[in-house]
Amino acid sequence: MSRPRFLLFGDSITEQGFRNGGWAAALAETYSRKADVLVRGYGGYNTRWALFLLDELFPPNSSMQITAATIFFGANDAALSGRTSERQYVPIEEFRSNLEKIVHQMKVSFPGVLIVLITPPPIDEDGRLEFARSQNKPIELPERTNENTGIYAKEVIYLAKELHLPYIDLWSKMQETEGWQKKFLRDGLHPTQEGNAVLHEEVVRVFSEANLRADEMPLDFPHHSKIDGNAPEKAFHIVI
Amino acid sequence: MSRPRFLLFGDSITEQGFRNGGWAAALAETYSRKADVLVRGYGGYNTRWALFLLDELFPPNSSMQITAATIFFGANDAALSGRTSERQYVPIEEFRSNLEKIVHQMKVSFPGVLIVLITPPPIDEDGRLEFARSQNKPIELPERTNENTGIYAKEVIYLAKELHLPYIDLWSKMQETEGWQKKFLRDGLHPTQEGNAVLHEEVVRVFSEANLRADEMPLDFPHHSKIDGNAPEKAFHIVI
Repeated sequence: MSRPRFLLFGDSITEQGFRNGGWAAALAETYSRKADVLVRGYGGYNTRWALFLLDELFPPNSSMQITAATIFFGANDAALSGRTSERQYVPIEEFRSNLEKIVHQMKVSFPGVLIVLITPPPIDEDGRLEFARSQNKPIELPERTNENTGIYAKEVIYLAKELHLPYIDLWSKMQETEGWQKKFLRDGLHPTQEGNAVLHEEVVRVFSEANLRADEMPLDFPHHSKIDGNAPEKAFHIVI
Repeated sequence: MSRPRFLLFGDSITEQGFRNGGWAAALAETYSRKADVLVRGYGGYNTRWALFLLDELFPPNSSMQITAATIFFGANDAALSGRTSERQYVPIEEFRSNLEKIVHQMKVSFPGVLIVLITPPPIDEDGRLEFARSQNKPIELPERTNENTGIYAKEVIYLAKELHLPYIDLWSKMQETEGWQKKFLRDGLHPTQEGNAVLHEEVVRVFSEANLRADEMPLDFPHHSKIDGNAPEKAFHIVI
């Protein structure tokens, strides 16, 4: 049963990774017959709350080995103090410290794991206002701003550089494309199928740069075309 | 990290389960934060070749527990002798015996596992001919017929009844819908997104009947709305 395992740890964008067109499903397809993709996503969670999960999710003496992991928080931590999602807000210094703790625990629990940090996506503030109206909970000011989320994104990058971890600057990457607001985000925050495709592509790129190239990883068993119908055991190196 | 694990064992229709709109991804989404879905699908494999995988995939003393598994072969075994996919053909008696061996090894390796047998889907013979033409490998007679695959489907059901295992009669289920040939099959054999949806729905139904109802299974951790922003530890039953 054993093959490399990829673990995706994060908030709702991770939790929803197996939805139609989702980035976790796409990753599982890219690494089909080569790696398993495990999703540990917790909608609405910030890094402060995520800390309560670590001992259970990543016990120090885990028998389960993880080859690569993504840590993808910040979208909730960056909710603005004094606005409607204030309870999710985490100050920037604490955000950084919490992320460091998550990285540390993963390293202890999964020796040799490749850890990739992902910044939160950009925020389409109009999209947030529209979404609130569509929920019959109109708000005057968005509960998150793109500028403030950008500060959290930068902090992810600072930390990644300091810890020599690969990272995905999703906040900047998405904004490179004109019309990113509606093209990549369905409610100003969560990715559309096209947004999921950007995320998938970035994860595959970073994994590949770290020597986890799908096309260089072996299939778990022979491709069926390699099996001789009259002597199938040969393909499995079985002497009969 | 531990939560119930669902294992999907089969041929290409299982291997492709994480493709866009695929049944494995849909199952992972249905059981989000409740169970992991592991795909062990091998395109082109028949049950004869699948036997060579058992000791490695399902070692008798596995430390990995599996809560539920699907066994989904037959589409290749039912290739016709004397036609273009002859090398995949497995006689019906051997097909049954091979399936029994797979069931047996799973039961030994994963005590208490819920095993669900899935019949092959129906065959749209015109779709197979069209597909061969589209690959510039035209054939005069389809390499699989719906009637013959139906015999293999029936055998799956006989075995399931004899072993008191739940089963999904995908062969019959798909044919209940008018236009199933193009609606549910993209090349006369592999399911379209709508065909994948039928499969997903059937698996969820059978799992639910066996007391694996997603809505009755606990979330792995509290929903974020249950977390008190001022005292988050309470939601995690942690005394500080």
